[in-house]
Amino acid sequence: MPFPIRRAALRELLRAADLDALLVTDLVNVRYLTGFTGSNAALLVHVDGDAGSRFGTDGRYRLQAGAQAPDLEPIIERACAPALTADAAERRVRRLGFESDAVTVDAHAVLVDAAPGARLERAPGLVQRLRRVKDAEEIAAVRAACAAADAALADLLAAGGLRAGRTEREVALDLENRMRAHGAAGPAFETILAAGANSAVPHHRPTDVPLCRGDLVKIDFGALVDGYHSDMTRMFALGPAAAWQRELYDLVASAQAAGRAALAAGTPVREVDAAAREVIVAAGHGERFPHGLGHGVGLQIHEAPALSVAGTGELAADMVVTVEPGVYLAGRGGVRIEDTLVVRVDGPDPLTRSARALVEV
Amino acid sequence: MPFPIRRAALRELLRAADLDALLVTDLVNVRYLTGFTGSNAALLVHVDGDAGSRFGTDGRYRLQAGAQAPDLEPIIERACAPALTADAAERRVRRLGFESDAVTVDAHAVLVDAAPGARLERAPGLVQRLRRVKDAEEIAAVRAACAAADAALADLLAAGGLRAGRTEREVALDLENRMRAHGAAGPAFETILAAGANSAVPHHRPTDVPLCRGDLVKIDFGALVDGYHSDMTRMFALGPAAAWQRELYDLVASAQAAGRAALAAGTPVREVDAAAREVIVAAGHGERFPHGLGHGVGLQIHEAPALSVAGTGELAADMVVTVEPGVYLAGRGGVRIEDTLVVRVDGPDPLTRSARALVEV
Repeated sequence: MPFPIRRAALRELLRAADLDALLVTDLVNVRYLTGFTGSNAALLVHVDGDAGSRFGTDGRYRLQAGAQAPDLEPIIERACAPALTADAAERRVRRLGFESDAVTVDAHAVLVDAAPGARLERAPGLVQRLRRVKDAEEIAAVRAACAAADAALADLLAAGGLRAGRTEREVALDLENRMRAHGAAGPAFETILAAGANSAVPHHRPTDVPLCRGDLVKIDFGALVDGYHSDMTRMFALGPAAAWQRELYDLVASAQAAGRAALAAGTPVREVDAAAREVIVAAGHGERFPHGLGHGVGLQIHEAPALSVAGTGELAADMVVTVEPGVYLAGRGGVRIEDTLVVRVDGPDPLTRSARALVEV
Repeated sequence: MPFPIRRAALRELLRAADLDALLVTDLVNVRYLTGFTGSNAALLVHVDGDAGSRFGTDGRYRLQAGAQAPDLEPIIERACAPALTADAAERRVRRLGFESDAVTVDAHAVLVDAAPGARLERAPGLVQRLRRVKDAEEIAAVRAACAAADAALADLLAAGGLRAGRTEREVALDLENRMRAHGAAGPAFETILAAGANSAVPHHRPTDVPLCRGDLVKIDFGALVDGYHSDMTRMFALGPAAAWQRELYDLVASAQAAGRAALAAGTPVREVDAAAREVIVAAGHGERFPHGLGHGVGLQIHEAPALSVAGTGELAADMVVTVEPGVYLAGRGGVRIEDTLVVRVDGPDPLTRSARALVEV
């Protein structure tokens, strides 16, 4: 069970930050540290060990907490974060960190009221920092999610499911159900299936407009397996690709290859973004690539690290990230190519395996 | 277009709160006030009128903003909330409200840095207060979502889709796809399909365990249509219901009827909860009903008002709420019965219409 190990790793960060404990209220972080997946929970991780830690949830989740986090005795209380804070104050926890990037201004005021004795300290992103580097169990889950997405896409194409006449929504739903058939709990996010001029909208929502011969089709999708996400974008031409479509595709493919080639432990994330971005800027399309190159993937579809112009820090081994440059020509069409990859010491290990090419269907 | 009307209604609240403007950063609230559905946006609503209001999003959403919110000229900036705050300070907006129930402690610090001149005031829940009472367009959307759920359940039963041997997951997915076939964009939330002892877990996730003859089956599900949710729970017995199953069902049905009967404009929400809870308490099961009676439904599956022991305020006409008492016998089975209803002056108008009964299949 990885959860006590993860809490032990968090204790190292608490020591470094000179905190006696961290109140974890971000539910994804609670899940990461305990295995609990309910919709109301808080966890106080004590720097001295799990004997001083506390887990709280409400009555709806008593049974679930026992099943998912049997090593933690829950405090049953609807307002569980203030309850754990008050309990910590009684136990003379002095410097109590809280997730200031997740706790709202109002919720913070409630915590302050609950624990007049404690010193609540802003401690953002500590669990997220741990979550950047995945353990073997996590990589296996993302790999399984990527495999479900790959298999679903292959099935869709083999069945002739991507064709003129079907609507964006129909094809997206077909793909999502094929992911489920391959073991996914569902899609990792709302599938982006964008045809023709819609492909120029980076985050387009599928419509009831039918696909047409000549359309460039962008499919950005992923699967969810055991709480872990996958993320991949592939491009298709309905019929023979036009010269401008192929040209745009080749440009983005070069940029993506440059980004993937730059993925190695020790490389600053900003340099990875720059490696891909330079290719697009050199072609005169810099302003038509209005987003970062990629992001971490795990229990959330978007998590640290951000591979972007403003990104900070370096890649490390066993981070799982996307590389997804795009160029969007408003009113005409856009291309994005995206993979999910594990960062290794010597380069990337791609988890999404579908052939990269502008596929004519 | 209801959006300018909603912003005008918000202005009344700003006047009452003596605010010059409200910075709206909760994305559901932004959608409610503008129609924009992207994942990064902020809206500054000025008390003097929309000429002083500002809308911000980033480059990915330039086209989408133009299509969904054509009446608002967007400021394109990734960090759009600080940008609108700085802009407000330049325009001498003095008392600037922010959504302190949505803005994190860290995000607030960024806003303060962005606008040294402005006075940032905690202003939680203003848009949520407006959202409690639905306009005709919203009620029509929830009604359509409820109708899609009703039709999907009827189809599932007619097709014999709920039967021993199928897994919880299979039946849940079948139901979700039938909602899509009836026009839903997808499920309103992860379908709760809980059989046998699992039905005693209020928020159970479907598993790969097959349904068995003799099981009590709880199905809590909803559809999503035009961004609006529906929410309904129905109970089934696989084969003839056992005496204890029927007894438990009848108790919860009485409680639910009492809750529905108490739904009328002007009634304090706490009294509605009490009306149903008293029935369950009188039967000696008070502790086995560990959640509130119901909640508002709209752009979110759970929104104001809360119909619970701790709820505040009164019902008003055109609120849309659920009534969903439950009694859960750990290790044995549980019953919940839930409808989504519109509050009217003289009583409720049920939007979910599936027959209420312990259906033996």
